[in-house]
Amino acid sequence: MKKLSDLGERKAIHLISNIFMQGEVAVGIGDDCAALEIGKKYLLVSTDMISQKTHILKEMTPFQIGWFIVSINLSDIAAKGGTPLGLVLSFGLPKETSEDFLKKLAKGANICATTFGTYIIGGDMKESSEINICGTAIGIVEKDIFMSRKGAKPEDIIAVTGSLGKAGAGYYSLKSKIHKAKLTKLLFEPKPRIKEGKELAKLKCVTSCMDISDGLSSSLYQLQEVNNTGFEININDIPISTELIELQKERKKLDIHKIAFHFGGDYELLLTLQKNKFKETEESLKKIGGELTAIGKVTKNKKINIYDGKVRKPLENMGYEHFKTHIL
Amino acid sequence: MKKLSDLGERKAIHLISNIFMQGEVAVGIGDDCAALEIGKKYLLVSTDMISQKTHILKEMTPFQIGWFIVSINLSDIAAKGGTPLGLVLSFGLPKETSEDFLKKLAKGANICATTFGTYIIGGDMKESSEINICGTAIGIVEKDIFMSRKGAKPEDIIAVTGSLGKAGAGYYSLKSKIHKAKLTKLLFEPKPRIKEGKELAKLKCVTSCMDISDGLSSSLYQLQEVNNTGFEININDIPISTELIELQKERKKLDIHKIAFHFGGDYELLLTLQKNKFKETEESLKKIGGELTAIGKVTKNKKINIYDGKVRKPLENMGYEHFKTHIL
Repeated sequence: MKKLSDLGERKAIHLISNIFMQGEVAVGIGDDCAALEIGKKYLLVSTDMISQKTHILKEMTPFQIGWFIVSINLSDIAAKGGTPLGLVLSFGLPKETSEDFLKKLAKGANICATTFGTYIIGGDMKESSEINICGTAIGIVEKDIFMSRKGAKPEDIIAVTGSLGKAGAGYYSLKSKIHKAKLTKLLFEPKPRIKEGKELAKLKCVTSCMDISDGLSSSLYQLQEVNNTGFEININDIPISTELIELQKERKKLDIHKIAFHFGGDYELLLTLQKNKFKETEESLKKIGGELTAIGKVTKNKKINIYDGKVRKPLENMGYEHFKTHIL
Repeated sequence: MKKLSDLGERKAIHLISNIFMQGEVAVGIGDDCAALEIGKKYLLVSTDMISQKTHILKEMTPFQIGWFIVSINLSDIAAKGGTPLGLVLSFGLPKETSEDFLKKLAKGANICATTFGTYIIGGDMKESSEINICGTAIGIVEKDIFMSRKGAKPEDIIAVTGSLGKAGAGYYSLKSKIHKAKLTKLLFEPKPRIKEGKELAKLKCVTSCMDISDGLSSSLYQLQEVNNTGFEININDIPISTELIELQKERKKLDIHKIAFHFGGDYELLLTLQKNKFKETEESLKKIGGELTAIGKVTKNKKINIYDGKVRKPLENMGYEHFKTHIL
């Protein structure tokens, strides 16, 4: 009998999504959010759970745990171009949890929500053996600007918002003796790209979009699976976070491209868009304080290759997946 | 420093609800669902988490665990008169979980959702040390028929749907040597009162409503807190489940009234309604296959008393509360 450790997270999700009837759902399991039709709009629903064992490093403050659960849920709303309407949070907590811890947890969740224009509207609290927190974000988007994971076409540009390797810089800073709060903040307090997602959707030239929660390589493989295309990534065009580049000056052995490709936790948006619209999209994002970088193109050839200016080689799929052994 | 075991679930929720800004929320923390205004309607959102330690008895089948998490979330939508639009589920599972277990879990969740006219629209799956499942149900209701927890008035009738003590019968059957699957099904596969909730809302005479998840006594105390009234309950009018009465014939020591008052898990609706509308409401529910029983009246006096035809005495508040020691 197969176990989850044999299947891995994505096969297990595929297995149960075949069991769930999804009759009236506009967009169902497999995209960042589920979408329900409400008149001319889609109601977006995203849910994410974190648990002590897999997500909550001991160095995280309760404020950061609260921020994190809200942030990763809002990131899914951002990836669909949505405006968040609110979040509900379910806390599973050990009974030894202190009042102070709970207050800071709630404060972190609240400040993240209000920073990105929304609210915690409800929740639940239960006793459990270890910390488990589940968030569900509700958002809304006009149907005709909803950004699906599906729709990439050969010759489209592949682009990412912001920079990659921020969370990796935080993680490797934690592992080093000189632990820098500025860097771990990048890992523990990611910023959902709500503003960027809404702007991108408004411009109507994005052909597919998802957030990069499990790393760029894993996200590219997930995007490829639903799009029946391939991707060619120019490794030299990947926007590496300045913090990671700085950290590498002290820790020479860090492979910054490997981290940018395979380390999860950056919560940037990965998208494909019409080639002739890239320039104006980049400028529109700049105007609202965002960043967009072209990192490659969509190909007919169904492989994912990386190109360094000289040779093309296949991209390894080494991003984080639950139940599987973590490589990085 | 206070711990959750000192505060208890409800004080802890009160504490964090003071931290959460709830600016644009029509109905926020403290009701069965949060409600967001969407035109003439309220979007209802309810979330509930169950974990191995506190909710998942070892006798529960994976099918029943799946059914349970969907059912308790739909119950909150039912209590507001809502029509469910869909649910998302987050599974935190140990990596040793078998494929077969996962399939049965998904099947139970799916069958419960479709039985009550809705779907599982999305979810998340993560690794955790023990089973933790969080469900979020989305529903919708016309604003003018939404049933709030607030609104009970002196002289209103207090009523419950269905019967009480079903889950208790299941629990005590499990504890006895003659474990009856028929009875444990009542505990592990509760039925959310969606049909009844919608009908009650349509009739527009309900002044307050909530579901009885933690027991009748606990629910009455929660309802009293937001209503600034008292209740007088006629103990002889409480509709005791026939299954509990049958079980008591074999287990004479069972105090059926104590179980009906204090044992949680029945997921019936507790409501107050205009006195002169009770008869027609009861009949309307009967027509759709439901049951409604008057169990007392709302009083100006802010106590909760039980009346046995001879004497009045205060009702103990002994229902289930997380982080507190469980009495029954």
